[in-house]
Amino acid sequence: MDMPLAISMGEPAGVGPDIVLALYARRDELKLPPFCLFGDAPFLRARALRLGLNVDIADVGAAGAGAVFAHALPVAQVEGLVQDHPGQVSQVSAGAVIGAIEMAVAATLTGTCRGLVTAPIHKGALYHAGFKHPGHTEFLAELCANGGKPHLPVMMLAHGGLRAVPVTIHVPIKDVPGLLTKELIVETVRVVAHDLKHRFGIANPQIGMAGLNPHAGEGGGIGREELEIVGPAVAQLQFEGIGVEGPLPADTLFYPTHWARYDAVVAMYHDQALIPIKTVAFEDAVNVTLGLPIVRTSPDHGTAFDLAGTGRASPASFLAAIRMADAMTAAR
Amino acid sequence: MDMPLAISMGEPAGVGPDIVLALYARRDELKLPPFCLFGDAPFLRARALRLGLNVDIADVGAAGAGAVFAHALPVAQVEGLVQDHPGQVSQVSAGAVIGAIEMAVAATLTGTCRGLVTAPIHKGALYHAGFKHPGHTEFLAELCANGGKPHLPVMMLAHGGLRAVPVTIHVPIKDVPGLLTKELIVETVRVVAHDLKHRFGIANPQIGMAGLNPHAGEGGGIGREELEIVGPAVAQLQFEGIGVEGPLPADTLFYPTHWARYDAVVAMYHDQALIPIKTVAFEDAVNVTLGLPIVRTSPDHGTAFDLAGTGRASPASFLAAIRMADAMTAAR
Repeated sequence: MDMPLAISMGEPAGVGPDIVLALYARRDELKLPPFCLFGDAPFLRARALRLGLNVDIADVGAAGAGAVFAHALPVAQVEGLVQDHPGQVSQVSAGAVIGAIEMAVAATLTGTCRGLVTAPIHKGALYHAGFKHPGHTEFLAELCANGGKPHLPVMMLAHGGLRAVPVTIHVPIKDVPGLLTKELIVETVRVVAHDLKHRFGIANPQIGMAGLNPHAGEGGGIGREELEIVGPAVAQLQFEGIGVEGPLPADTLFYPTHWARYDAVVAMYHDQALIPIKTVAFEDAVNVTLGLPIVRTSPDHGTAFDLAGTGRASPASFLAAIRMADAMTAAR
Repeated sequence: MDMPLAISMGEPAGVGPDIVLALYARRDELKLPPFCLFGDAPFLRARALRLGLNVDIADVGAAGAGAVFAHALPVAQVEGLVQDHPGQVSQVSAGAVIGAIEMAVAATLTGTCRGLVTAPIHKGALYHAGFKHPGHTEFLAELCANGGKPHLPVMMLAHGGLRAVPVTIHVPIKDVPGLLTKELIVETVRVVAHDLKHRFGIANPQIGMAGLNPHAGEGGGIGREELEIVGPAVAQLQFEGIGVEGPLPADTLFYPTHWARYDAVVAMYHDQALIPIKTVAFEDAVNVTLGLPIVRTSPDHGTAFDLAGTGRASPASFLAAIRMADAMTAAR
């Protein structure tokens, strides 16, 4: 398989570039699939030198990546200056950070690359440069829509066969009950079921649905959302032939032995999904975006500015993100 | 040490009596500390026979328990009839269930027993018989107050050195933001810090405090409770000399390696505390009530009616509850 994965460089002041360089240096030992790094070659050479990594960098673009990957890190060069100042966010780099994502998405959409792994960005730096999207994922959804109406991107955290999907994400807890609708839950689970089938090769996916309230509301005694919203969504999905069970009490749903009975668990809010996956996966959970026309994974950590340029950032989650994108696109 | 632990029988239609009988039958192998079971001797004989357990039962009361524990299960006899109908809840037994709790608390308060382990009850059966308390724990708090103002009982889930305390418990998610006050958090943490010191022998307890919102509110970008409620509570507690850090993002706080840095983590709501403890502890988490004048633990499961009378209920959590009550009172 010569078609490479695309990796977007992410925030240059963070640990993303460090980890990609460090993983590339171990490509043989780790048996990494070929990838092309969308970023700035001079910056990457400077960062490699700073980290003491003996890595050749070849500005060959995505189409040339497969041929050189064995002996040089293939880079698709972006426009704009990129500074090698670990830990120091600057809007000078913002154009290149955004451009790397745009180019990597285009290369993946058009079939030059198999799938996309994104390194973490720092939204603050990008907002100053005019970035208008609430987050990385929404930006990807808009790029993938190519001018049309974006699909609903769905965030999934995965660790081996344990997968969790929050229906609402970066919103205050007090807003969660108002944002939860039967329609949102149904739309989200349709995307999950579709992608488990088509991206993960699970013929008949089984999904566990958490309740919103303690003990899934205890039949109305501790909240009514299970009766009025979550339950009717489950019924609608079952009517459509999708394998869903719930609403189930969230505190016992994530026993790993219980959790493993489902191909994914759908949670009602951020911490309900992220607490259990991070509790079991420590440093190597993978963030997968479902609902896009391309495969996209990312490590489950941020820019970690304090570790940038030090070589001490753990590559575990980034490596898991590469392996998952590889597995999800292996059939191509 | 001859002073026994007290165990209240709990719901006779559930698995509580089964597990106590089964554990007693293995007392030598498990090196169990002496305990006295507050319940009904004829019922317990019938249940032991049903389970095929060769257990002698001695109606000797708490004061006689230490002397007979090696060869017979000491029982403190309650008033009222108790039926041996596994899985079939009946209000006929309600008086005995309530009486067992009252007697066991009295024996522990007065120093005949060292500490109390409660078997699960079924509130529904008790409500029909006039039980007016929102739950087991509130009933215990009232009994311990002995006519005075009850202390604030605080629920802690523990698994080895990993401990989690929810500030709000059996309330709908939509009510949580309104119920969270600086005062409630401060009161709760004072109880936790006091009991970690005096019940767990931790000289200078360190407590991690979760935020309410995703990413602990990201500085106000995802909710303001961290700035207006949780943060001021932390400042007040630090001013009082209590070792508290936070508010911290809940999704990374429960990495076991991160969690283990604290003697306890205080969470803002039920699932935020119970999801991680149940994810790591599978079947052997222990529920500990802090803030009472007596030591009280209980298994972290319910009556499990479908398993009652079968002998298939896991004793892991009940055994862990006995061991924890034993360790917490070993100095007496």
